[in-house]
Amino acid sequence: MKFKAVKGTRDFYPDRMALRNYLAETWRKVSLRNGFVEFDGPVLEYLDLFSVKSGDEIASQLFSFTDRGGRALAMRPEITPTLARMVNAQINALPRPIKWFSLPRLFRAENPQKGRLREFFQWNIDIIGSDSVLADAECIFTAIDCLREMGLSAEDVVVRIGSRPLTVAALRLAGVNDSAMETALAALDKRPKVSPDAFAEMAVAAGIPANSLDKLCEFQDAKNLSAVTASLGGADADSAAEIAKLESLMGYLDNMGVGDYCKLDLRIVRGLAYYTGIVYEVFDAAGDLRAVAGGGRYDNLLKLFGGPEVGATGFGMGDAVLEILLAEKGKLPDLSAGLDCFVIDGDGNLLDKVLEAVGRLRRGGTAADFSAKRQNVGKQLKEANRRNARYAIILRADGIGVKNLATGEQTGVPIGEFLENPSAYMI
Amino acid sequence: MKFKAVKGTRDFYPDRMALRNYLAETWRKVSLRNGFVEFDGPVLEYLDLFSVKSGDEIASQLFSFTDRGGRALAMRPEITPTLARMVNAQINALPRPIKWFSLPRLFRAENPQKGRLREFFQWNIDIIGSDSVLADAECIFTAIDCLREMGLSAEDVVVRIGSRPLTVAALRLAGVNDSAMETALAALDKRPKVSPDAFAEMAVAAGIPANSLDKLCEFQDAKNLSAVTASLGGADADSAAEIAKLESLMGYLDNMGVGDYCKLDLRIVRGLAYYTGIVYEVFDAAGDLRAVAGGGRYDNLLKLFGGPEVGATGFGMGDAVLEILLAEKGKLPDLSAGLDCFVIDGDGNLLDKVLEAVGRLRRGGTAADFSAKRQNVGKQLKEANRRNARYAIILRADGIGVKNLATGEQTGVPIGEFLENPSAYMI
Repeated sequence: MKFKAVKGTRDFYPDRMALRNYLAETWRKVSLRNGFVEFDGPVLEYLDLFSVKSGDEIASQLFSFTDRGGRALAMRPEITPTLARMVNAQINALPRPIKWFSLPRLFRAENPQKGRLREFFQWNIDIIGSDSVLADAECIFTAIDCLREMGLSAEDVVVRIGSRPLTVAALRLAGVNDSAMETALAALDKRPKVSPDAFAEMAVAAGIPANSLDKLCEFQDAKNLSAVTASLGGADADSAAEIAKLESLMGYLDNMGVGDYCKLDLRIVRGLAYYTGIVYEVFDAAGDLRAVAGGGRYDNLLKLFGGPEVGATGFGMGDAVLEILLAEKGKLPDLSAGLDCFVIDGDGNLLDKVLEAVGRLRRGGTAADFSAKRQNVGKQLKEANRRNARYAIILRADGIGVKNLATGEQTGVPIGEFLENPSAYMI
Repeated sequence: MKFKAVKGTRDFYPDRMALRNYLAETWRKVSLRNGFVEFDGPVLEYLDLFSVKSGDEIASQLFSFTDRGGRALAMRPEITPTLARMVNAQINALPRPIKWFSLPRLFRAENPQKGRLREFFQWNIDIIGSDSVLADAECIFTAIDCLREMGLSAEDVVVRIGSRPLTVAALRLAGVNDSAMETALAALDKRPKVSPDAFAEMAVAAGIPANSLDKLCEFQDAKNLSAVTASLGGADADSAAEIAKLESLMGYLDNMGVGDYCKLDLRIVRGLAYYTGIVYEVFDAAGDLRAVAGGGRYDNLLKLFGGPEVGATGFGMGDAVLEILLAEKGKLPDLSAGLDCFVIDGDGNLLDKVLEAVGRLRRGGTAADFSAKRQNVGKQLKEANRRNARYAIILRADGIGVKNLATGEQTGVPIGEFLENPSAYMI
């Protein structure tokens, strides 16, 4: 009988688990120092919750089922609907802005591809209750703070920043009316992923007049804000305000010391309908991989889920693409941490003393182990090395030897003295 | 439109999340210092995997469904089958003993009760590849090391230790034959939870002769190992060996300094059929709650899942009962950690400098925030207090004031000097 893991899921053997923990701990550390607090919801939610934001077709991309009470449940494919549900339930008790993060385990009933799995982890950062561009800047800074903490420089990654309202304005100018807006946005979102011909075909099918495509591409390809204004044929008051927001945003990010990671790029549209302001995606600088992270402002979120009209902005960063990128850039950390010490029975008949020492060391916070196999000193030392122990503590009836396994240096200490303060002998 | 969480699941608002993280971090810290390394598997496994150990009836207690490829999948209700699958897949590459732990998120399609939820977390400790009682002692020590780390003393919790082979021997003596053994064990397992009359009825229905019940109860209630021997009418060689194991175990636990937490208790049987040796459960001393943890030796595990015959022992500790117990004993830690500092615009026109300072502080590892609301100093200080900041950093054009928010003490420092080494001013 042979059992296998389900396709698109991962077995986290200790090496791989150490990497997963490194990502989670770095995400958590960076979130906290940026003033966010952690939340999580259940993996299982009522299926309805997920169609609010993403439409009924989302059901086909979910693992869902009916429970014994006849209720349709689903495994969450994202945390944002849960965030909206939870914030709405406490909206009057929560001081604003609400700065929350989470590290949810998520599920998608898709065919797995490179960087896209059926079970994965995602870092989510959200600020709710602020209309200020400062909140968008905070989120983008936090994403960059994490990437830099992981060793990725502005040579490695780039945050491409666009604007949903400006893109909508450009589409209106191009003659797209509001009823076709959602499909037109979806077509623009796909432009960077397809050939110019394929894009043209897709765009026309989505209701964008063929004769306005050049103008739209000029808008999307604008290299700076004055080129954006020009491509809109001068900006009306609303567009001017959106352009001013992008200008403020870039200034804030410069002030915070991360301007070099950021680039204006109106080709960034984001697939989902619900974005309402600045949008962005993080890519490897070479552009070989899927987006590492993506987000933006979605001021209608809480209202969509039955709550008040409140400003909201945030992003998600998945573990799968990030891991590929870190590996490609040689930035996976050395995670081979081992034991502080391995306690060795030097005389072969001191099990009681070994157990006493191990018990006291562990209770005092020292990572200690011993050989349950009852073997000779040489073999015990070998096990100590295999376990990556920093020190071997060799017990004998008349005292102990503390051996530094990296240098081979050994010091003799009376056992009682050692156990009083073991860290003094293991530096 | 109102959305609710699914019954038996939990919303982890930040306070509750901090507690969940405290449990997970303590479990992880204690595991590592006891020489275990972490693994995890997927939440979704093929349904078949779960019936191997627990029989087909387990399917009714699982969230399961058929995926688009027609395969029956289930959300894991426990990690042990995954452990067996993963270890078997690498059995020749893994040095033994294999000391692994995990902190899985688990799911049960049950009606929720106090301390029993449909979605929960569990700490799992396993040692695979050792037949020695030392391995059992290690697991029990690790459970106690955790409970003590969380502030629970031998007055608060007790590890009740039994023996599956001795219980089987007692049942054989009582005239139960092997074909009825599993149901008889299940009946004995329930004895502590029901009245004597209900137990008698249950036991007889399970195939235990009525006239041997007194003798069986005498065995289960034995207070020490010689009473156990006596209740078995003297022990045969096999039983004598099992009694010697219990004696060694108790000696090891004494040597490791945790004997006071441990108690011989042959009423501990464990529900599942697959245990083969020493078994134990951790209870609150008052005995008011469900078991906090339970485990034992299960030497047939790997073989059951298509692998070799290898010794194995371990336990699981869930979060729900543990949380109730810690709350009852007043041992929930203070988790209201806040920011290191809150940066305040003291002149009202220094946003650039505020952002620069916040950016530098965060990148240097300091948890820093500021008010995105652009309000007066008094209101900013109020926000600093609400956010539990230890220090307010009040920026002015001519320097900064570092204010300790606990003492009210304030120091003036030039801004450059502060940013060079902020921790020197925030002790």
